[in-house]
Amino acid sequence: ALHSSFYQLDEALLVDYVKARPNLAQRLGGTHTEWKIKEVGDGNLNLVFILLGPKGSFVLKQALPYVRCVGESWPMTIERAYFETTVLREHGRLAPGHVPEVYHFDHPMALTVMRYLEPPHIILRKGLIRGTVYPLLAQHMSDYMASTLFHTSLLANSTLKHREGVAQFSRNVEMCRLTEEVIFTNPYRVAASNRWTSPHLDADAQSLREDSRAKIEIAGLKAKFCERSQALLHADLHTGSIMVTQTSTQCIDPEFGFYGPMGFDVGAFLGNLALSFFSQDGHATFEGEREGYKLWILKTIGETWQLFERKFLALWDQNWGSGDAYVEEVYNSKEVRDLAQIAYMSEIFQDSLGFAAAKMIRRIVGIAHVEDLESIEDVEKRATCERRALNFAKHLLKERSQYSDIGQVISAIQSIH
Amino acid sequence: ALHSSFYQLDEALLVDYVKARPNLAQRLGGTHTEWKIKEVGDGNLNLVFILLGPKGSFVLKQALPYVRCVGESWPMTIERAYFETTVLREHGRLAPGHVPEVYHFDHPMALTVMRYLEPPHIILRKGLIRGTVYPLLAQHMSDYMASTLFHTSLLANSTLKHREGVAQFSRNVEMCRLTEEVIFTNPYRVAASNRWTSPHLDADAQSLREDSRAKIEIAGLKAKFCERSQALLHADLHTGSIMVTQTSTQCIDPEFGFYGPMGFDVGAFLGNLALSFFSQDGHATFEGEREGYKLWILKTIGETWQLFERKFLALWDQNWGSGDAYVEEVYNSKEVRDLAQIAYMSEIFQDSLGFAAAKMIRRIVGIAHVEDLESIEDVEKRATCERRALNFAKHLLKERSQYSDIGQVISAIQSIH
Ligand SMILES: Nc1ncnc2c1ncn2[C@@H]1O[C@H](COP(=O)(O)OP(=O)(O)O)[C@@H](O)[C@H]1O
Ligand SMILES: Nc1ncnc2c1ncn2[C@@H]1O[C@H](COP(=O)(O)OP(=O)(O)O)[C@@H](O)[C@H]1O
Ligand SMILES: [Mg+2]
Ligand SMILES: [Mg+2]
Ligand SMILES: [Mg+2]
Ligand SMILES: [Mg+2]
Ligand SMILES: [Mg+2]
Repeated sequence: ALHSSFYQLDEALLVDYVKARPNLAQRLGGTHTEWKIKEVGDGNLNLVFILLGPKGSFVLKQALPYVRCVGESWPMTIERAYFETTVLREHGRLAPGHVPEVYHFDHPMALTVMRYLEPPHIILRKGLIRGTVYPLLAQHMSDYMASTLFHTSLLANSTLKHREGVAQFSRNVEMCRLTEEVIFTNPYRVAASNRWTSPHLDADAQSLREDSRAKIEIAGLKAKFCERSQALLHADLHTGSIMVTQTSTQCIDPEFGFYGPMGFDVGAFLGNLALSFFSQDGHATFEGEREGYKLWILKTIGETWQLFERKFLALWDQNWGSGDAYVEEVYNSKEVRDLAQIAYMSEIFQDSLGFAAAKMIRRIVGIAHVEDLESIEDVEKRATCERRALNFAKHLLKERSQYSDIGQVISAIQSIH
Repeated sequence: ALHSSFYQLDEALLVDYVKARPNLAQRLGGTHTEWKIKEVGDGNLNLVFILLGPKGSFVLKQALPYVRCVGESWPMTIERAYFETTVLREHGRLAPGHVPEVYHFDHPMALTVMRYLEPPHIILRKGLIRGTVYPLLAQHMSDYMASTLFHTSLLANSTLKHREGVAQFSRNVEMCRLTEEVIFTNPYRVAASNRWTSPHLDADAQSLREDSRAKIEIAGLKAKFCERSQALLHADLHTGSIMVTQTSTQCIDPEFGFYGPMGFDVGAFLGNLALSFFSQDGHATFEGEREGYKLWILKTIGETWQLFERKFLALWDQNWGSGDAYVEEVYNSKEVRDLAQIAYMSEIFQDSLGFAAAKMIRRIVGIAHVEDLESIEDVEKRATCERRALNFAKHLLKERSQYSDIGQVISAIQSIH
């Protein structure tokens, strides 16, 4: 029933669709003969069109009822477009500077129209591969994560509102199940979809599949992912879901959004920065070329966490008692509030490290790899980069409880050779 | 709309209600003039009628749109009857020997008809006050908890089914909010509804309200209660929700049911046994009278946990890979399975101790006390019993991470004077 009025757009159908909707047509201006249309979906799942007109522009994203990069043999619910739009709107309200505005949503068509993030916006991952410094990245991402995670948690909201949100996003279960499989399960078993640089990493992949301690840790993280409704997550916050310029940072593509553990978002971002760090040697055209850039990445990892923690706590300080978690009359002294905040942040920190590790691992031995490493043409170099990243991630997964601040984590990254 | 056809039953209306429903009338047999009706609701919330006829009997429970013991000034959703019935049916399917059969449910009337647990069934709490030994209690309660908790968790089910259940029971939020307030919040603040044996326990109650470490621990437990969807809980599993004979153990009244942390059920039962233990000296009519009984309670605490753990793990062993949590191909050796089970059980154990402590505390300094202690007429004696229980509970709340087996906990209970 929901799908009955769905049809997949192509350029011609797209023009008809927009022509029929004055709000959209007027945003572009002129007549349809003057519109430029480009399909840019580089993602694995969806159609993405850019529309440019004499007066304005927008991006139109449509979910398809199957996994785009695989084909119709792998069906996937188009309801994800509804959840993506709902998160874009909710996170956009909370962090308006870091989420593209939604102009239009068509539920049966699984179609979202949003601000076009015009050039020089590029996908952060591509900027990192080029070695471009983004001086405001840590500041912006910590803003985005602190605001969206704090304000969708029980630190800010009643349990009434929270359980409503949990119920609503429980329906995005198909997307969660994909995550469960590709991040928390398949890298730790023999699976046809797994791949890695072979034969170089054969032994590394095998040792992971035989690592009982790693499997116990991934089970704990999977349980948190499946059972812990801490905040409304983006839930796919890797560096391919962030578009940047020197002055702008925009989070797109929250189609996996659901109520989960905060560390899953923080860890996605930090883990993907770490992957980028380990890939840099593979991109250097002469020895030492990327050393400065690697230091900038490490600095960004450190600053992101530190600023995230500071901003999150500042929001908490400004909002004591507004959520149901910590009632003001109970948490009524500076001493107990400090202790509460330390305990809360240290759990997010631990979770973030665990999820960062899990996300790194799956990008090296699982189904979906990252361009940061894939684009290293020299296979020996690539394997070396990948092995370092994998070794660090395995270590972090198992030993993260030994780390109590981000500086120690950065030292550990630097010590991997 | 839902409430439009609701009306509160009295004996006359009840007869009409049953007469109009052949299935119910035939269960009683004879004609309505031969039926005996007794209202027995000793609870705080609902109407409970026993109906006896020449041929058979049943209990009819109706939820009222307010808290019965307070009055219409404290409204409460009658939807709780729907959740109670849903849990009775689901848990009844999983542990048919320990849950009364549901014969009939009328949603708009918030009315459940179920098996009458005939005499000599009595409420366990009352049996404990009398000093009655129930030799099968640990065996039965460990059966009930192991089966219901295991089979409604991700150890047994897909995340698809699990998130559906979570969404459904998220609507029982009003009941969860009551728990949040009376267990996790009010005992730790000044609240008009709090009471305790005064002035005897004034300083004890005050020291709790000033105990920062206790407040940090209760915050962690509250977060688990609010955010962790581990299994479909009974969620009010104190000794007043269990009816017993020497050979039968029946869990009634799961109107607070929702997806929460397993330790909340296990801890409710163990904590209420511990309250009973500490109350026994107040019921002894001569010195030493209850010493043997106290040992039986401690033995029951120990056996309940040990049997619960053993049965839970047996279910797990029989069902490796049937749920989405631990995929068989990942957890593929005895070594990793053992490690996984140890980690999982030790979290339930820790949670159970924490929730047990929280439930003991709230029964001594919060709004709703227990007959075990309330019925001790000598106020000095009562205060002594209550202080011991409170001291143990405070200790357990804060130091539970030091305990790794139930024997240590039992020793700690015995060492309190
Ligand atoms: N609002 C936007 N402005 C500019 N480009 C965008 C926008 N949204 C998506 N894109 C481009 O389309 C690509 C795919 O979009 P994305 O939302 O990530 O789709 P998918 O879910 O298929 O990964 C992005 O990597 C980016 O290059
Ligand atoms: N199925 C039953 N068989 C016999 N007695 C019952 C049954 N259900 C409830 N009762 C009696 O009614 C009392 C209140 O029932 P309960 O379900 O606990 O209601 P409440 O939710 O108001 O606490 C119980 O303590 C018990 O004495
Ligand atoms: Mg994408
Ligand atoms: Mg996507
Ligand atoms: Mg009751
Ligand atoms: Mg009840
Ligand atoms: Mg199996």
